[in-house]
Amino acid sequence: MTNDELKRLRIEQRLLDRQVMDYSIKILGPYYAKRRDAVRKIPKFWSSVIGETEPLRPYITYDDSLAFDTLNDFWIEWDLVDSRNVVLSFSFGDNPHFGPQTLTKRFVWREIVSEEGSESGEGFYESDMATCIQLKSGVKLLEQHLQGGEESFFTLFGYTKTDKLADRQENTLIVQTLVDEIFPAAIDLYNELHEDQDIAEEYDISESD
Amino acid sequence: MTNDELKRLRIEQRLLDRQVMDYSIKILGPYYAKRRDAVRKIPKFWSSVIGETEPLRPYITYDDSLAFDTLNDFWIEWDLVDSRNVVLSFSFGDNPHFGPQTLTKRFVWREIVSEEGSESGEGFYESDMATCIQLKSGVKLLEQHLQGGEESFFTLFGYTKTDKLADRQENTLIVQTLVDEIFPAAIDLYNELHEDQDIAEEYDISESD
Repeated sequence: MTNDELKRLRIEQRLLDRQVMDYSIKILGPYYAKRRDAVRKIPKFWSSVIGETEPLRPYITYDDSLAFDTLNDFWIEWDLVDSRNVVLSFSFGDNPHFGPQTLTKRFVWREIVSEEGSESGEGFYESDMATCIQLKSGVKLLEQHLQGGEESFFTLFGYTKTDKLADRQENTLIVQTLVDEIFPAAIDLYNELHEDQDIAEEYDISESD
Repeated sequence: MTNDELKRLRIEQRLLDRQVMDYSIKILGPYYAKRRDAVRKIPKFWSSVIGETEPLRPYITYDDSLAFDTLNDFWIEWDLVDSRNVVLSFSFGDNPHFGPQTLTKRFVWREIVSEEGSESGEGFYESDMATCIQLKSGVKLLEQHLQGGEESFFTLFGYTKTDKLADRQENTLIVQTLVDEIFPAAIDLYNELHEDQDIAEEYDISESD
């Protein structure tokens, strides 16, 4: 049956795509490390790239943006055994919500397994525990968002495997967008946003170092 | 200067991305060949995948769709020396505009070289000659489109390097979308379009072969 045949092809491609992904991480790893240091010098590099990418834009609320504007590093570590498992790190500077801190969270890929026990080619990201944000004031920004159901990028850090299906789908989309689209293409995305501007004029960096 | 630094990083990544692309073609080649035979059996597989992908949708006019609905094969050959150079092949069945034929066209990547002679990380697709479509009636569909300036997917076959900048940009976008987005993700794209339907019900295929 062709429906099954399509599914088999899809699973076969998933395995090959993963092989290519592993190769890509190996080949691009040293480059990403170099890029990491370079873009750290550009204010709002990561906040503009993450905040302006379509599926994520609605999640960066005005409140979020106050913290996001200080985001000076975004980094991914891939699990050596299964590169679909990732640790995401976001380093923020001092902002109205919280002092300088790096928020780290691990996401594990759960493949939906069919009745016969084979991979389905579909799945979602799961996370064992919430990452605490040490807030400045007494206001619990994250909890407010979670309880009020308001969209916020920071609910990603509160996401755990006990969350309901809709949250699972939303957070999976966020992680996939960060890992598959934003991280690899960050410089291109940044350039697209600043195409018509003279990038050099936007920030002042001493050329002496 | 950081503007230059960003540009250098971009070019460095282009070279590494190409290395990953070469590996991907090697690893996925046999799979693509298998997929090619499988999807040939699914009516409108390629027309729906190409016609429903956002940047290409406006190019498939109603007139185009009459031919596109008979598209039973779309295939890419990559240049072994530089995998950015591609030959695209589209096999159509009998349709109101033309009889069964395979339209093939080669696109060569031209990197825009900076003043110092280094790669810029940007470029466009060029093509040496137009591909003739043997039309059924006396009506010259393609020429009509070209002269009238109306958008049509088939103007891609008429594209040559003497065309003006706007056409170069448009055709480059079309080729990049076909090569980088549609071809690798074809089955996923098809599934997304048919998610809520029972795919099996849509076509009738004997299981005896």
